[in-house]
Amino acid sequence: MSSSKTFRIERDTLGEVRIPSDAYYGAQTQRAVENYQISGRSLPRSFIRAQGIIKASAAKANMENGLLQPSYAKAIIKAAEEVVDGTLDDHFVVDVYQAGAGTSQNMNANEVIANRATEILGETLEGNRIHPNDHVNMSQSTNDTFHAAIHIAGAENIVHRLLPAVQQLHNELKRKSIELMPVMKSGRTHLHDALPIRLGQEFSGYAETVHEIYHQLEKATDYLYEIGLGGTAIGTRNNIHPQYSEKVIKEVSRFTNLPFREPVDMFSFMQNTNAPIRVMLVLKEFAMHLIKITSDLRLLSSGPRTGFAEITLPSVQPGSTIMPGKVNPAVLEMVHMVCCQVIGGEASVTTAGMAGQLEINVMMPLIAHTFLDAIELLSNALPTLVTKCISGIEAEEENCKQWMNASLGLVTGISSIVGYDRASKIGMEADERKISIQQVLEEQGLLTPEIEKALDPKGMV
Amino acid sequence: MSSSKTFRIERDTLGEVRIPSDAYYGAQTQRAVENYQISGRSLPRSFIRAQGIIKASAAKANMENGLLQPSYAKAIIKAAEEVVDGTLDDHFVVDVYQAGAGTSQNMNANEVIANRATEILGETLEGNRIHPNDHVNMSQSTNDTFHAAIHIAGAENIVHRLLPAVQQLHNELKRKSIELMPVMKSGRTHLHDALPIRLGQEFSGYAETVHEIYHQLEKATDYLYEIGLGGTAIGTRNNIHPQYSEKVIKEVSRFTNLPFREPVDMFSFMQNTNAPIRVMLVLKEFAMHLIKITSDLRLLSSGPRTGFAEITLPSVQPGSTIMPGKVNPAVLEMVHMVCCQVIGGEASVTTAGMAGQLEINVMMPLIAHTFLDAIELLSNALPTLVTKCISGIEAEEENCKQWMNASLGLVTGISSIVGYDRASKIGMEADERKISIQQVLEEQGLLTPEIEKALDPKGMV
Amino acid sequence: MSSSKTFRIERDTLGEVRIPSDAYYGAQTQRAVENYQISGRSLPRSFIRAQGIIKASAAKANMENGLLQPSYAKAIIKAAEEVVDGTLDDHFVVDVYQAGAGTSQNMNANEVIANRATEILGETLEGNRIHPNDHVNMSQSTNDTFHAAIHIAGAENIVHRLLPAVQQLHNELKRKSIELMPVMKSGRTHLHDALPIRLGQEFSGYAETVHEIYHQLEKATDYLYEIGLGGTAIGTRNNIHPQYSEKVIKEVSRFTNLPFREPVDMFSFMQNTNAPIRVMLVLKEFAMHLIKITSDLRLLSSGPRTGFAEITLPSVQPGSTIMPGKVNPAVLEMVHMVCCQVIGGEASVTTAGMAGQLEINVMMPLIAHTFLDAIELLSNALPTLVTKCISGIEAEEENCKQWMNASLGLVTGISSIVGYDRASKIGMEADERKISIQQVLEEQGLLTPEIEKALDPKGMV
Amino acid sequence: MSSSKTFRIERDTLGEVRIPSDAYYGAQTQRAVENYQISGRSLPRSFIRAQGIIKASAAKANMENGLLQPSYAKAIIKAAEEVVDGTLDDHFVVDVYQAGAGTSQNMNANEVIANRATEILGETLEGNRIHPNDHVNMSQSTNDTFHAAIHIAGAENIVHRLLPAVQQLHNELKRKSIELMPVMKSGRTHLHDALPIRLGQEFSGYAETVHEIYHQLEKATDYLYEIGLGGTAIGTRNNIHPQYSEKVIKEVSRFTNLPFREPVDMFSFMQNTNAPIRVMLVLKEFAMHLIKITSDLRLLSSGPRTGFAEITLPSVQPGSTIMPGKVNPAVLEMVHMVCCQVIGGEASVTTAGMAGQLEINVMMPLIAHTFLDAIELLSNALPTLVTKCISGIEAEEENCKQWMNASLGLVTGISSIVGYDRASKIGMEADERKISIQQVLEEQGLLTPEIEKALDPKGMV
Repeated sequence: MSSSKTFRIERDTLGEVRIPSDAYYGAQTQRAVENYQISGRSLPRSFIRAQGIIKASAAKANMENGLLQPSYAKAIIKAAEEVVDGTLDDHFVVDVYQAGAGTSQNMNANEVIANRATEILGETLEGNRIHPNDHVNMSQSTNDTFHAAIHIAGAENIVHRLLPAVQQLHNELKRKSIELMPVMKSGRTHLHDALPIRLGQEFSGYAETVHEIYHQLEKATDYLYEIGLGGTAIGTRNNIHPQYSEKVIKEVSRFTNLPFREPVDMFSFMQNTNAPIRVMLVLKEFAMHLIKITSDLRLLSSGPRTGFAEITLPSVQPGSTIMPGKVNPAVLEMVHMVCCQVIGGEASVTTAGMAGQLEINVMMPLIAHTFLDAIELLSNALPTLVTKCISGIEAEEENCKQWMNASLGLVTGISSIVGYDRASKIGMEADERKISIQQVLEEQGLLTPEIEKALDPKGMV
Repeated sequence: MSSSKTFRIERDTLGEVRIPSDAYYGAQTQRAVENYQISGRSLPRSFIRAQGIIKASAAKANMENGLLQPSYAKAIIKAAEEVVDGTLDDHFVVDVYQAGAGTSQNMNANEVIANRATEILGETLEGNRIHPNDHVNMSQSTNDTFHAAIHIAGAENIVHRLLPAVQQLHNELKRKSIELMPVMKSGRTHLHDALPIRLGQEFSGYAETVHEIYHQLEKATDYLYEIGLGGTAIGTRNNIHPQYSEKVIKEVSRFTNLPFREPVDMFSFMQNTNAPIRVMLVLKEFAMHLIKITSDLRLLSSGPRTGFAEITLPSVQPGSTIMPGKVNPAVLEMVHMVCCQVIGGEASVTTAGMAGQLEINVMMPLIAHTFLDAIELLSNALPTLVTKCISGIEAEEENCKQWMNASLGLVTGISSIVGYDRASKIGMEADERKISIQQVLEEQGLLTPEIEKALDPKGMV
Repeated sequence: MSSSKTFRIERDTLGEVRIPSDAYYGAQTQRAVENYQISGRSLPRSFIRAQGIIKASAAKANMENGLLQPSYAKAIIKAAEEVVDGTLDDHFVVDVYQAGAGTSQNMNANEVIANRATEILGETLEGNRIHPNDHVNMSQSTNDTFHAAIHIAGAENIVHRLLPAVQQLHNELKRKSIELMPVMKSGRTHLHDALPIRLGQEFSGYAETVHEIYHQLEKATDYLYEIGLGGTAIGTRNNIHPQYSEKVIKEVSRFTNLPFREPVDMFSFMQNTNAPIRVMLVLKEFAMHLIKITSDLRLLSSGPRTGFAEITLPSVQPGSTIMPGKVNPAVLEMVHMVCCQVIGGEASVTTAGMAGQLEINVMMPLIAHTFLDAIELLSNALPTLVTKCISGIEAEEENCKQWMNASLGLVTGISSIVGYDRASKIGMEADERKISIQQVLEEQGLLTPEIEKALDPKGMV
Repeated sequence: MSSSKTFRIERDTLGEVRIPSDAYYGAQTQRAVENYQISGRSLPRSFIRAQGIIKASAAKANMENGLLQPSYAKAIIKAAEEVVDGTLDDHFVVDVYQAGAGTSQNMNANEVIANRATEILGETLEGNRIHPNDHVNMSQSTNDTFHAAIHIAGAENIVHRLLPAVQQLHNELKRKSIELMPVMKSGRTHLHDALPIRLGQEFSGYAETVHEIYHQLEKATDYLYEIGLGGTAIGTRNNIHPQYSEKVIKEVSRFTNLPFREPVDMFSFMQNTNAPIRVMLVLKEFAMHLIKITSDLRLLSSGPRTGFAEITLPSVQPGSTIMPGKVNPAVLEMVHMVCCQVIGGEASVTTAGMAGQLEINVMMPLIAHTFLDAIELLSNALPTLVTKCISGIEAEEENCKQWMNASLGLVTGISSIVGYDRASKIGMEADERKISIQQVLEEQGLLTPEIEKALDPKGMV
């Protein structure tokens, strides 16, 4: 696209615009390209695909309702399917940071499809037989279609990519939990000596936490299935055929094989961008958990000589450019960085979410970008976390055992026998004199078989 | 409490402590008071109540399991019930910002109950017949009980106060939506002229958004019912009677008449403080919506002479100390400030939520305080919003009508007849020449009956 | 105040109000008490003091400008000084979450001072000789005085409490840095073995980071000295004596002994609440650093048997209600929780900061509360951190040495001799076979005196 | 690069790696490419440039210190200069989300330069004459160079792009302020009628707020000039020539013509990533202000028929795909979205900033990406805001005048004559009866010349 040397002239209500001759887009897209040279980033593939799905579905519904002549509708559907499958991605050129609500993005789709459909009908791009607004955008508005496209792209990517990745992570943590259940070690609370625990029990906690996120994500995704196509500009369904919403949503569902439906209240849908923000809040919670879990794994694998060294992680790359032989928890750190990004993304979209005014929240392009990016990052990072890190974790059983036997937390075992106050004194004496609980007890003539048994870690987990 | 002039001496493992003679609390509480003079704020009534419920329930379970002699158990239960009903609130004196995990807070409860129970048994406070750790804290740890107390206090306040308040808000918005449905006005997108809409439709959107929050809140609250009593320090149920968890949770449920249950995975429960944070994320989403809704109402009521003035709010107080006769949207502004606080609260608890390490997240006192405070603020603010603002909103029908008839958005009505391009030119000419759409059409000889009908707002809503 | 049994009736523009007979406040305060039962918290002492300073200073300026008769002015000044010194605190009863901009709070001050001044003039409260608006609020508006009061209260508390506390923390960290400089230990990057470092060098980093915050805070505080008294409602200085601003600000400076001045641009001052938010951003950065530093200290003191145990912290209280003898890093955890609160506070005030509209940001009461609370919490927490934790830190030199000598990071020492690739292989072999670097070198016949010297930690720090 | 069909085999400490034959990068970069397929985004041009500057400067310093033979040094410098000028950008292929600290990114630079320098020396890529670690990375570590590269890239872009853009915005707002100073209008507080103000006064406030940000940004940027080159892995300057830091920093300063210097404390520099985060906090404050200012401009330009319509913005594109003729405040909305992104970016980097542990904060790649992206977005958005929006703003003087004369805020003018209470009643009666202040006064026989003069807006601004 970029090497175009020739141009054609188009006009819109604001005047003439010069457009690369081989571009399917038209005047409004070109204006947007010139107006918004901000990030160099466009909305992602998944979003453009969703725009194509909506345009094809709307054309079908309009045709069935007798509003769009079949030859036009078929050409539009064919062109829109090329948008769906990615063939025309190079013609989607508007920056993420564009006009509020995504008007330019919607016009980009309308213009590309109108021109491509015109071409399909055997005319030149200048022919303009298919009109971007009157035909391609028929029964639609930026406001309902952009919003619906976020839902469709989000739902497709969550269902087909993120949820399976979360499931995979849960499964692997569960599997590891079982595998590591025989390994006994010292628990730590406040990073201080606590009671014995099994390594597998720690992983069991991680697994269940991820499991809860799976369910949260599933539930939040359900709201994405509400798409207010037919609400047009402000939810009043102005000038819309009575059967349009039902038909277009049915068609979108057929395309995606996902259960989209009309929103409970069209005005609530038009005023806000609730569903993607709701999902982002779940992703933020997930990020918080992943930071905790990956930080734990870094603590447990700290060392190899100067840390806890209770587990080893698989090596994926040399760890230092100056310290030879170093191997760092690189994959865990990568995931932690992705989580920082997701947490920032949530701050972006909720800041945007507060900016709604009356009939619409115009921050939608930013919300679309941030929301879909978070899904993408996690969908890619989680399988890497599983396959390149968690599945290869191994216990350092000897270290686990040594820490466990040294822990002053063992004194808890005799608390119910000698009372909290006396047990405390024993524990503190062991600490101060840097000897074991057993030694203190022996010196005090208290190391009876009952006490010895009570101090045995095996009885405590 | 504060005027105590005499003191008694107690000892703990770190040495002697001087305590006001009439205080039920003991050495560890006193140390915490001296260590943490930070905010001057204690954990709230609802939390102390929950601590009492747990202590009474634990004593009952321990008695039934044959671990605690009935006379002790009964004295503990009686003392704990005084904690539940608030009689002993003055003896809960530890600052919110205290030792991690809330050890001091748990000891405050243990000591108060131990001493009061000793007194009930007819001994002096120095008697120490009932031991704070060995008896009152039996089968418990700070880690499981503090966490469970957050859940219990949160669930009680959400179920009995916040959910009804959200419901009340939803009902009133719904009622208003119906009442204001006849009022036609101009919609605004991007704060610019859009199509006609009904005032009641705008409120219908608000109502549904609040309705969704009701459901979100209800679902998130369900996680609060999981309370890991019996997990003790790290989830291994160390030294706990096999029937303890079942019995103590049953007793808590009886006390509160709420369906508490054991967590799906004890280690996940112990490692994190997920449920309150999950609820806070819903409250943040709610705050975001309330900011949008209250900002809309301030826009719609802006004026009375220099704004939209489509609605009037009830006056609750003079609005300015220098501009006489001014009446501001004071209640809406109060709610907006509460929302800022809730949003900050979510940032606090998720920052705390990331700080978990291995077997525990020690940030629990901060999480308890922030979470319960957010529930309290919203539970108080929402009824004020309903009764002092929303229920008294009145439409300024004349203004609504004038804006609607002037709106350039009406030109949309003829778009499907004359095409988007021509309609655009008509709209822009009306704008530039500051005349009406009708005037432009008349000048161009286009004002046919069909067109006139298409421009009638009644046909657009 | 609360036990008032008798009432008097006052009137404002909205009708009659019943007020406790012994209350100095009047109708508008009473309305606010009834309207806003939200948090039960009032604005803090430091804010009320600042209100008193402004009211006294304004009365003096008005008197000097010949606008307020001397007898009235003197009575107002005397009453305002009682507000300054705290005598009348019980009469400041409005909830933090009140009318936007703090109109009720300003009227609370106006009414209390008017009535108390009337009393000073020998009349009853019903006398109303001094008028809250016409006399006490003369030349003022809520908008300029509430904003200025935030600046005054903030500046006083930062200069007199927070900056000294930050300085004290810096000094102690610096002192510790020198004290611990002889202690050699292993550095850790990615929590993995790195080169040797001195314990004092780690503390040197902490000290300098705090030092930078001291300077940031000092610079940000300078903006608090700009107070737009005389801007009245919207910055146009409507109906203000030309010398009012100069005189009133000079008087405030005399009162506080701080260099307050007029803002560079009055409209910027009126539109926003920039200075407190700017300080909050510094406090957020500080909180981020404190979390890092206190987390490090918890890592270094982890143990005593199952962690790094390179330092010990002073014991301030027993650490566990179930694990006897446990001593946790309680003060560090308290500070971490305070930091979570400060971070949340910043989210609150920047959310509020975005909500400004045209001539004013009405979120000022929330901003005042959150900003002053953050200063208070840190001013109290830092001295506790210094005296109860940092000053008592001791090195566990033996542990430090053992970790250092075991660290695989030592192999870096020979990298410039044998090359990175070969050194890597040596390091990895030591790791895999769980032997020392020296052993590997010995086996390979490479342990020359040059190499031995290169491996000596003393040469590396 | 992507169409490479042939490969070469390289080895690192973890084994063999297959690399495209024409790639300058080597084994470790290739591993990173395979390990991290997360976002598809690399670190930006400005960062790669900074890496090149550091590598060239280090080679020069090492040569001068006699550690690197001149022929090698010169080849490295030449290759590094190709990195600086962008020639080798295609060979920088590591994902933003990579190994902690950016080890892979540093190795990408080391390998590309080593291989290109080897080629410059006349050998093949397999020749490996110049070693990535031993030669290119000499005297360096990822930890000091990655961190320094963030500072260098940040400083260059702030000084050359962002600061001028902020200045341009300030200048234009100032210019507009002067241009619009004659236009009188009604002020609005709480969005309600307030006193008269000049349109230019509102812009004066905006200008000064931006001016303060300019100074904040300048001050924060000063910290970026501290670059701890020579600190190597943990700040101990292990194995570094005593004159290295001075020489390398001097060389970087020469390259960039910016005043880089050694950090006050090397350990503080190594432990944290303070300076970029400090700048991000300023950018967040800026975003908050820009949201306020652009929201105000949207309010003031709301309409054209259903809003305030006190100003008009230049049209940059058609505003709606369904409502013909609509023109929206598209550029202002774009800026608001950029601000949401910057606010999210701050949340990302401070979350990352809290994750530092002991000698390093490994979140640097995320911080680099987010920080530089925020600078880029604002540097592009601000000139668009100025040239396509603010410079073309025009006052709608007639509307301004009508609102002003209708405002009930005018009654403030007579408050000092008739007293606050009586003025309030007049104002409220005008409101209730929907008549003007003057009418009420006339009816009450109060419209004296003095009063008429007091009501004249001209006297109020």
